[in-house]
Amino acid sequence: MARKKRLLNDVANERPATQIPIDRVGVKGVRLPVRVLDRDRGHQDTIATVDMLVDLPAQFRGTHMSRFVEILYGYRDNVNYRTMAYILKEMVSRFDGARAHITISFPYFIDKAAPASGEKSFLEVRARFIGDLVDKYKFSLGVTIPVANLCPCSKDIADAGAHNQRGDVYVELESRHIVWIEEVVAWAEEAASAPLFALLKREDEKAVTELAYGRPRFVEDVVRNVAEKLEGDKRVRSYRVECTNYESIHQHDAYAAIARDKKN
Amino acid sequence: MARKKRLLNDVANERPATQIPIDRVGVKGVRLPVRVLDRDRGHQDTIATVDMLVDLPAQFRGTHMSRFVEILYGYRDNVNYRTMAYILKEMVSRFDGARAHITISFPYFIDKAAPASGEKSFLEVRARFIGDLVDKYKFSLGVTIPVANLCPCSKDIADAGAHNQRGDVYVELESRHIVWIEEVVAWAEEAASAPLFALLKREDEKAVTELAYGRPRFVEDVVRNVAEKLEGDKRVRSYRVECTNYESIHQHDAYAAIARDKKN
Amino acid sequence: MARKKRLLNDVANERPATQIPIDRVGVKGVRLPVRVLDRDRGHQDTIATVDMLVDLPAQFRGTHMSRFVEILYGYRDNVNYRTMAYILKEMVSRFDGARAHITISFPYFIDKAAPASGEKSFLEVRARFIGDLVDKYKFSLGVTIPVANLCPCSKDIADAGAHNQRGDVYVELESRHIVWIEEVVAWAEEAASAPLFALLKREDEKAVTELAYGRPRFVEDVVRNVAEKLEGDKRVRSYRVECTNYESIHQHDAYAAIARDKKN
Amino acid sequence: MARKKRLLNDVANERPATQIPIDRVGVKGVRLPVRVLDRDRGHQDTIATVDMLVDLPAQFRGTHMSRFVEILYGYRDNVNYRTMAYILKEMVSRFDGARAHITISFPYFIDKAAPASGEKSFLEVRARFIGDLVDKYKFSLGVTIPVANLCPCSKDIADAGAHNQRGDVYVELESRHIVWIEEVVAWAEEAASAPLFALLKREDEKAVTELAYGRPRFVEDVVRNVAEKLEGDKRVRSYRVECTNYESIHQHDAYAAIARDKKN
Repeated sequence: MARKKRLLNDVANERPATQIPIDRVGVKGVRLPVRVLDRDRGHQDTIATVDMLVDLPAQFRGTHMSRFVEILYGYRDNVNYRTMAYILKEMVSRFDGARAHITISFPYFIDKAAPASGEKSFLEVRARFIGDLVDKYKFSLGVTIPVANLCPCSKDIADAGAHNQRGDVYVELESRHIVWIEEVVAWAEEAASAPLFALLKREDEKAVTELAYGRPRFVEDVVRNVAEKLEGDKRVRSYRVECTNYESIHQHDAYAAIARDKKN
Repeated sequence: MARKKRLLNDVANERPATQIPIDRVGVKGVRLPVRVLDRDRGHQDTIATVDMLVDLPAQFRGTHMSRFVEILYGYRDNVNYRTMAYILKEMVSRFDGARAHITISFPYFIDKAAPASGEKSFLEVRARFIGDLVDKYKFSLGVTIPVANLCPCSKDIADAGAHNQRGDVYVELESRHIVWIEEVVAWAEEAASAPLFALLKREDEKAVTELAYGRPRFVEDVVRNVAEKLEGDKRVRSYRVECTNYESIHQHDAYAAIARDKKN
Repeated sequence: MARKKRLLNDVANERPATQIPIDRVGVKGVRLPVRVLDRDRGHQDTIATVDMLVDLPAQFRGTHMSRFVEILYGYRDNVNYRTMAYILKEMVSRFDGARAHITISFPYFIDKAAPASGEKSFLEVRARFIGDLVDKYKFSLGVTIPVANLCPCSKDIADAGAHNQRGDVYVELESRHIVWIEEVVAWAEEAASAPLFALLKREDEKAVTELAYGRPRFVEDVVRNVAEKLEGDKRVRSYRVECTNYESIHQHDAYAAIARDKKN
Repeated sequence: MARKKRLLNDVANERPATQIPIDRVGVKGVRLPVRVLDRDRGHQDTIATVDMLVDLPAQFRGTHMSRFVEILYGYRDNVNYRTMAYILKEMVSRFDGARAHITISFPYFIDKAAPASGEKSFLEVRARFIGDLVDKYKFSLGVTIPVANLCPCSKDIADAGAHNQRGDVYVELESRHIVWIEEVVAWAEEAASAPLFALLKREDEKAVTELAYGRPRFVEDVVRNVAEKLEGDKRVRSYRVECTNYESIHQHDAYAAIARDKKN
């Protein structure tokens, strides 16, 4: 094999016709099973979609794309804050670059109990770990949490009822110490009109309907409520929070966002 | 050019290694601007996504895919019930097949006036023309209409409020005489709890909220209400109606469907 | 709780205004972790998207949607041919219907070794189990396998090279005895120009490029090759095979399909 | 109506519980027919998806979402660099904010002639106009162009053939004077291995296959080639160029990006 490799010319190492440095080059959409930490159950097996990118100096024509996948596979049984740093260091070292980036996105299931009956089911949130190595290592956690929001304006002006709908809360945060996905989900669910459940018996549906009606929230309210939590949490160094409502009275969506870097 | 063509061997005409007849072969996802009929404004310019398929006898290896696109382009300024038949006949004739199929899908915009203020805006529905030629020509119209639905159970059991959400009604019908997209939209909007609008002033939001609260509908109610209209319309020979609710209390959707061939 | 339940009126049990029987009603897009059989490793943990539907007689207004989810959760640790039948029987019994349908779709990972270096990586295929209970139980397996296809016409007419692209092969089959996902993947990969791999070293890339160039395949060839295998396999009672090429010279796709019921 | 409006309380104007300024709030995914400029035909009718966002000071609870849609509808017959500025100014004025943002995305069709036969067809590119008003007005044009790319490494190491695939080139640029979508498309198509066409006769397929084989390009080559054009064009003040290859030998994608602000 070693001999065979020598015989194969390596076009990627040639000098390119146009010598411009490339900011980011790599693979996107690599899919593989991974194991991540679960606050309550120790670990959770899930399926990740991965982007891995490095910079490429002006004098090299191409990148050896297979190396990304090789590095990634070495850590798939244990994807966390720490191993993300190892992956990034290997990327910088094997690609001889100055910068490395990785995003690992995955569905993550939260155990929920219905509010009245206590029946158990899963809530799926979409999580992502975002790692960057540029001189030093930076890790961010992103979580998208589905919620229900009931419109305060509609409730206020209507003689009865109020339009409500599914919404998504997205929280991305950089932290000094571990912040669990479960904590972010709790913040989002408290900030919105009501949480979602896969399984609701009739008494639960009554409880959720009344909870939402008693807690009307604009997208603006939701992002402010989450931001207040993030401002008050000393582990969080910078954050972004977004809320999108899939409006039940419109075809389009309502959206609000707050971003802040507490380090500045 | 003619000479060049003769020089190019045609692999598609070879005998295949495995001589099995192919049920459907052709192109999918062809995108192009088209003009369709509009009941109120004469015509509407839109953008279509087109699938065109024919059968292929056992003794031919391949299909000449470029011919589909050539035929389609000849009719793009005037896509309707009649020209769909011409397209299918050309397909059967040029491909020497026994069967031809075409689906032309496109966004279609309906003029709407808000219920209280009268402010005008567009509702986008997704329409499709489905044509089949097997001995005789069969044309179906499909329309997906976004609506709002408010849950009768939630309204009944809750002390106040009721969960509601965006839903989609899909109607597909084969008819003897023209049925306008606008008619199908009207049936779906009457069947559901409330129609959607791109533009609602506060007094409109009040009206729509109260309309939905006064007209709670399960997905089951919606499909039955539309089916009743389709049963009573003598132009309609067969139909399928589906309703999907993007539940605001769940991550998953509620769905119901009724299909009937009135010819049997 | 029992008392509470009695107090809550049940709108779903009312007589509907329009008494038309509903063909299919239920939940779509339920997401949850499941465990499925793996031919080589015993089992595989994955994430499913589930649709569950029953019929609803004319005299009932609504369905109790939460029951679908309750039934499903009881079997999520062991989803296979046999437990699908149990799920369907419970659906018919608890909903008092005549027909039940379930589709469980999930990503499934196949262990692959690169053709020259032998390096290991995963191939993701999308699988689905389709179950129907109407008098008797019918089970179908569906698998979508990504492949590479190289155009025979392009190779034949060009002085050098040939356009090639990613394609998807979809196989759906009803069988008397178990047919493994791994078997279906092997049929599709042999039928196409070349298989895909997550990890290819340079000597592997050489091997795959040459394999595809030596094995040019139209979408028509691919579906015929797979159909030949399915015709010859006595376990298979009916099948459908489709191939879609995401053409590298066009924006649209090339498509072919063969379907046959061997029982007729 | 005026009276009715006075009677309706306006929750949006209340002081919020949590007084944090909101960076961006508004509507996303508004769909409507629009007319844009076409270099060769004067104008082109297409269908837009629009996001409109403003900032919201700490002391206001909510935004009046319907105003976004009202403003937008006033300009839909003439969407261009100049009217985008008018829209942004109206947004700042009517929402009493400091910043306004709009993105208008739409399919745009380019007339193409096949390379040998000269047969005409359309190429669909996805364009977007991005406008920001923060003190002064900034306009960017974004265009996604589908292309074919043939791998230089695969060609070099294989005895015959080379893997190739569909790719997308995305160019986003801020310019002093108008840069036409048609110009950006030409840059991307020259940078890649070959352009795409909806309609190719056999002699054209020969020409395109040979063009791509004679012009192998990594994603790295493509972004450098486009960047060279953008560096040399004095109208362009800052840019970003990305290339994604939907690899025919892998399930994942190859990606490269260069971004530069020439003003710094």
